[in-house]
Amino acid sequence: MVNSDNLSKEERLASLSGAIESGSLFTLQRMLNALHPAEIAHLLESSPLEQRKIAWELIKRENEGLVLIELNDDVRSQLTEEMDTVDLVEALKDLDTDDMADFLQGLPDTVIQETLAGMGRQERERVEVVLGYDEDTAGGMMDTEVVTIRSDVNVDVVLRYLRIKGELPSHTDHVIVVDSYDKYLGVVSLTQLITSQPDDAILDIMDTRYLSIPAHLENAEVADLFEDRDLISAPVVSDLGKLLGRITIDDVVDVIREQAEHSIKSMAGVNSEDDLFAPILPSVKRRAVWLGTNLITAFMAAAVISQFTDTIESAVALAVLMGIVPSMGGIAGSQTLTMVIRGIALGQIGKSNTRDLLKKELLLGVINGVLWAFVVFCISAVALKDIEIGILIAVAMMLNLIAAPLSGVLLPLGLRKLNIDPALAGSVLLTTVTDIVGYAGVLGLAALLLPYLRSVFS
Amino acid sequence: MVNSDNLSKEERLASLSGAIESGSLFTLQRMLNALHPAEIAHLLESSPLEQRKIAWELIKRENEGLVLIELNDDVRSQLTEEMDTVDLVEALKDLDTDDMADFLQGLPDTVIQETLAGMGRQERERVEVVLGYDEDTAGGMMDTEVVTIRSDVNVDVVLRYLRIKGELPSHTDHVIVVDSYDKYLGVVSLTQLITSQPDDAILDIMDTRYLSIPAHLENAEVADLFEDRDLISAPVVSDLGKLLGRITIDDVVDVIREQAEHSIKSMAGVNSEDDLFAPILPSVKRRAVWLGTNLITAFMAAAVISQFTDTIESAVALAVLMGIVPSMGGIAGSQTLTMVIRGIALGQIGKSNTRDLLKKELLLGVINGVLWAFVVFCISAVALKDIEIGILIAVAMMLNLIAAPLSGVLLPLGLRKLNIDPALAGSVLLTTVTDIVGYAGVLGLAALLLPYLRSVFS
Repeated sequence: MVNSDNLSKEERLASLSGAIESGSLFTLQRMLNALHPAEIAHLLESSPLEQRKIAWELIKRENEGLVLIELNDDVRSQLTEEMDTVDLVEALKDLDTDDMADFLQGLPDTVIQETLAGMGRQERERVEVVLGYDEDTAGGMMDTEVVTIRSDVNVDVVLRYLRIKGELPSHTDHVIVVDSYDKYLGVVSLTQLITSQPDDAILDIMDTRYLSIPAHLENAEVADLFEDRDLISAPVVSDLGKLLGRITIDDVVDVIREQAEHSIKSMAGVNSEDDLFAPILPSVKRRAVWLGTNLITAFMAAAVISQFTDTIESAVALAVLMGIVPSMGGIAGSQTLTMVIRGIALGQIGKSNTRDLLKKELLLGVINGVLWAFVVFCISAVALKDIEIGILIAVAMMLNLIAAPLSGVLLPLGLRKLNIDPALAGSVLLTTVTDIVGYAGVLGLAALLLPYLRSVFS
Repeated sequence: MVNSDNLSKEERLASLSGAIESGSLFTLQRMLNALHPAEIAHLLESSPLEQRKIAWELIKRENEGLVLIELNDDVRSQLTEEMDTVDLVEALKDLDTDDMADFLQGLPDTVIQETLAGMGRQERERVEVVLGYDEDTAGGMMDTEVVTIRSDVNVDVVLRYLRIKGELPSHTDHVIVVDSYDKYLGVVSLTQLITSQPDDAILDIMDTRYLSIPAHLENAEVADLFEDRDLISAPVVSDLGKLLGRITIDDVVDVIREQAEHSIKSMAGVNSEDDLFAPILPSVKRRAVWLGTNLITAFMAAAVISQFTDTIESAVALAVLMGIVPSMGGIAGSQTLTMVIRGIALGQIGKSNTRDLLKKELLLGVINGVLWAFVVFCISAVALKDIEIGILIAVAMMLNLIAAPLSGVLLPLGLRKLNIDPALAGSVLLTTVTDIVGYAGVLGLAALLLPYLRSVFS
């Protein structure tokens, strides 16, 4: 464990780019290798492509594996693509089984096979167990290195056994009690080992109700359990109750971070983008999905508008103000959408409360609709001196501000039923609804009512 | 620690609302009090207002405090508003100092004073230390209950001392070594205590380089340190190196979750909204800020369009297609914005790499611009048979797709300089830019070039 060092992240970044520009690579190498692997990873992620490659070359062989697992997927595969298998095996060899499995899952099959072949037998078998599970399940994130004891011994025997062992895996807050068939029985915390009397029997002090995690549980649910129960580590068991490994809080923190980032990036259509300095062409390709989808939506809105060209020609003020209606609907809808996507992610929304949620958002929509319709009418009528258009915009706005929150609830729930990630598709569908309701509302009302309104107000 | 129970979150939610509707409150009470406090909190958060109040009444007095600290701020203050101070003090009394301080910070001053007055002296002093620090700093999130030892003893003495103590605070993974003035010297992990020989001197085995956290460090930085170094707990020290308390990973996980949610909720303008079933009027008020700001933006765009009514009258197809340009710019800009806001939050962007980032996004903008301009031109020219308008839309689109990513980099960086949260104000400012550049671009080009283009193509 290194001490907190004196440079801030920004200062470190500046000194890296300064050192590369001035060519003082030796100083840079010393600076880099004095940092914690996570800090080196952060520096690499923060560096433009060329500087990143230069810095990577300067990192000591024995640090490479630890740095690689701290990197995000994008940057990691950029760097590993240029490594040969021998170097990869070398870099991986000191990692925990869960980190190694996580790492391998991102590599091509041939490289996985070669890497596995390069390992010792015991280690290979351990990694293969983890690789056998989906990477988004408890089995895929578990570490197979566990400290197990039997239930028929006493505290003193366990303490002596641990003292002989010498070192325990990181994040060991308890030892796991198993029977002779490796069936999980319970845990004894280190705290308890320390505070118990030497002749206390493990059978008496072990916690048999401690949470054990089924290997097939999804990682989001694992994270919830850890968060709800403030765990540091928990055993992972098979369907038959056999102990397979354990999950530690550091891996859970990564899951929580990724989950949270997933929503925000999905909603902006940059879901699979991790690297701020990603090469240009992959970036263009990734972002194209979202831009293309939006273009289709925009042309759909244009198709709606094109039905009303006569109306627009008769009152060009409509062209000036009509965009306000879909824009406000989009904002109101995305506010509800954000709350609902978050509610879904937190498991707060089920069949039993959907109706209450809809009722609440409908009421909110009506109040918002009346409120903002009034504001818009006042601005249009007073500032722009156009009462008729003001009425039309206000009524259309009211309709759209009621439709928007209802779509904000129903679209993500519908998408979830279809097994489509609401964060990914929700916002583009929502905008489609609010654009079409907005434009069709204001222009349709104008086509129907404008002649009548004109005759009343002029 | 309770066992994993058999009902899923959704089933529990359904049985709660079923029990309330059928009036079988006794069953409900038994079900509720068998759950873990975090699960009760989740149920309350997932329940509509009225069901929430009924369920809260059924929760046992001794569970109230633990449930309250698990609730989000909105729901918690809803429930505590109706409690009197005596009940509050009672509910709080078994909490950790950090939880209690966190809880108290959300209450009115008079209630804080009354609650403090109702505590025992030692406990009050502890809570007051934590309350003395800003709640977003290490000092504000620390727990003051720590296990300390002196450096001049051996392992056996420490083990005997711990055995007499009987129970250690949760998440104790090490004991902290201090001198007689409470100055922080280092730590000895429980693992090490267990695996060392009884006569090993603490002075020899203690880790003097273990990270200690300055009390004034911001909680986001504390979270980074825990994440980078995979910590379970860390000591908090004053500027003079005096040990004040410790921070544990469970509180850090909360910070990480909140940080991540902050960005996504800020960008949708629902920043301070935690409760899916919040009462209507507060919701209307909270969401009004964002809707009002957007209305101003929308009227600014309308003002731009109103400068070109003559042009629109001469070619109403412009009114049909012009919205496509700001819409695509908004998407492209928010993609960049999302990446940059994330980069800022992760500390990846500094002076030294801003230029590289701008260069990358400029190049991306040019490629995207050319690509999508071409697509839009083809659609307009072939499907809509309007080459002139196609050219205008394409050129305006190209300009906007170049302006958008540049704004996506420069706006959040500028906001950060002004100490304004980029997640909060970034997206509305960005849309303002892309709307105005979009509309002004397409209509301005039309005013300038349409007569000329018409003469060429017709």
